[in-house]
Amino acid sequence: MKDQIETINTQLKDYIQSLQTPETLRNAMDYSLQAGGKRIRPLLIFSTLSAFKKNPLIGLPVACAVEMIHTYSLIHDDLPAMDDDDLRRGKPTNHKVFGEATAILAGDGLLTYSFQVLAEMEQLSAHKKIALIRELAKAAGPEGMVAGQVADLEGENQELNLNQLEYIHKHKTGNLLAFCIRAGAIMADADEETLKKLEEYAFHIGLAFQIRDDILDIEGSMELIGKNIGRDVEKQKSTYPKLLTLEGAKEKLNDHLLKAEQILQSLSIERNYLKFITELIGKRNR
Amino acid sequence: MKDQIETINTQLKDYIQSLQTPETLRNAMDYSLQAGGKRIRPLLIFSTLSAFKKNPLIGLPVACAVEMIHTYSLIHDDLPAMDDDDLRRGKPTNHKVFGEATAILAGDGLLTYSFQVLAEMEQLSAHKKIALIRELAKAAGPEGMVAGQVADLEGENQELNLNQLEYIHKHKTGNLLAFCIRAGAIMADADEETLKKLEEYAFHIGLAFQIRDDILDIEGSMELIGKNIGRDVEKQKSTYPKLLTLEGAKEKLNDHLLKAEQILQSLSIERNYLKFITELIGKRNR
Repeated sequence: MKDQIETINTQLKDYIQSLQTPETLRNAMDYSLQAGGKRIRPLLIFSTLSAFKKNPLIGLPVACAVEMIHTYSLIHDDLPAMDDDDLRRGKPTNHKVFGEATAILAGDGLLTYSFQVLAEMEQLSAHKKIALIRELAKAAGPEGMVAGQVADLEGENQELNLNQLEYIHKHKTGNLLAFCIRAGAIMADADEETLKKLEEYAFHIGLAFQIRDDILDIEGSMELIGKNIGRDVEKQKSTYPKLLTLEGAKEKLNDHLLKAEQILQSLSIERNYLKFITELIGKRNR
Repeated sequence: MKDQIETINTQLKDYIQSLQTPETLRNAMDYSLQAGGKRIRPLLIFSTLSAFKKNPLIGLPVACAVEMIHTYSLIHDDLPAMDDDDLRRGKPTNHKVFGEATAILAGDGLLTYSFQVLAEMEQLSAHKKIALIRELAKAAGPEGMVAGQVADLEGENQELNLNQLEYIHKHKTGNLLAFCIRAGAIMADADEETLKKLEEYAFHIGLAFQIRDDILDIEGSMELIGKNIGRDVEKQKSTYPKLLTLEGAKEKLNDHLLKAEQILQSLSIERNYLKFITELIGKRNR
């Protein structure tokens, strides 16, 4: 998977370098794209394709598009008007380096470019490209990630229940993770039943991902995570440990991981790749 | 054209109402979409379709998508970190009503949703949908509108020459106007030669549009425009009147309008619709 991460980093750089655009904008977009993300979303796409015995690299443009969307959301999320974070992945946030105006525009640029990348994909039928674009827009837009962001902002300083917390995370991170798996399955011509089960799998790893995030904000190491920890408590955010205690959150995490693995077991696919990612999500330290 | 404007207003409302999304986000998106724009871009799409004797309403989803993109760019442009405007079309700007965080997200939501609307268009082949999505992303993204915004920001407090000013406006407003005409022509199966000429036409009306904007910032009525005038001088922005004098700018405007009309004359299309828009752009008071 190290090779895959290399490949995605190089391809992302190439996409940005090929743009005819002002240097400031190019640098701002490139800065956050190359700021050392875990590339979980691209790996999910590649692993899903491998699970169907397809060449993972046919998903490279989709993987780049998703990473652009994920990165834009981090840039906007870090803005003073939003989470007001100075540090991300151990580096100053985009607006700290380039200023707020350029950071907003770098986010807008990445978001828009992601759809261009999908539309320009070669070796994929127009029908499949349309399916991917529709699903990505739904997962990232006002019924997906953006809805989750708004709900998250509105939930600050409020006591949320578990349903409300799940709504936020399902939308804020879950939908885009689910898109990655669906995208892989669509490119691999998976049947409807398998697609449904993979969606359920995605739901569980999405929540597991977020619960692990909440736990890391308590137990994690600032050096490894690359951002300040303890921010959730500071902002009185509703989190899984807050609602369920730290022990309860860990149980819930294991519960989701177990269910995810059970779904994988029930599918007749090459399941090792996705199994590896499931474990990665459960155990990650950053 | 009044009917067409009614139709687009209703359809935009329907698109937003149909979303499953938090009320705040829905209201913020709807607020700016319905804040009384001139709908020049939708009218350009409809008029281009009419010029090819097609039913203009087949372009309705594209017209809505473009209006979403245009509106998102205004919301982000008005933010304190960008142009810091309190008033737009006679109403408080989005962040004045909903706060900065929601305004940023409403912009992100509109931008993303526009691509979903295009991908979900019925009665259009997947190939044409892909062409429209690719061209819209290019016109609005880091090689188009977003590039223009960055260049505009960088040009503030600087003495620009005419070439630099043209770069800004070609990208900031011209590319999206050109997309509208190209989109109409693509949907109407226009041939390559006609498409090329229409692009040239779009270039001229795009610049005419911007020069008229600059003139209105000096001669216009705040009541009609719905925003504070004299802002360009206040911010020491490079404008056509500043570079060419007010009289020189008016000459340049007429020059572009004349060239636009000459191109229309050279085409074997039903040219009255586009002729009307050309005149509208040249004479508009708001």
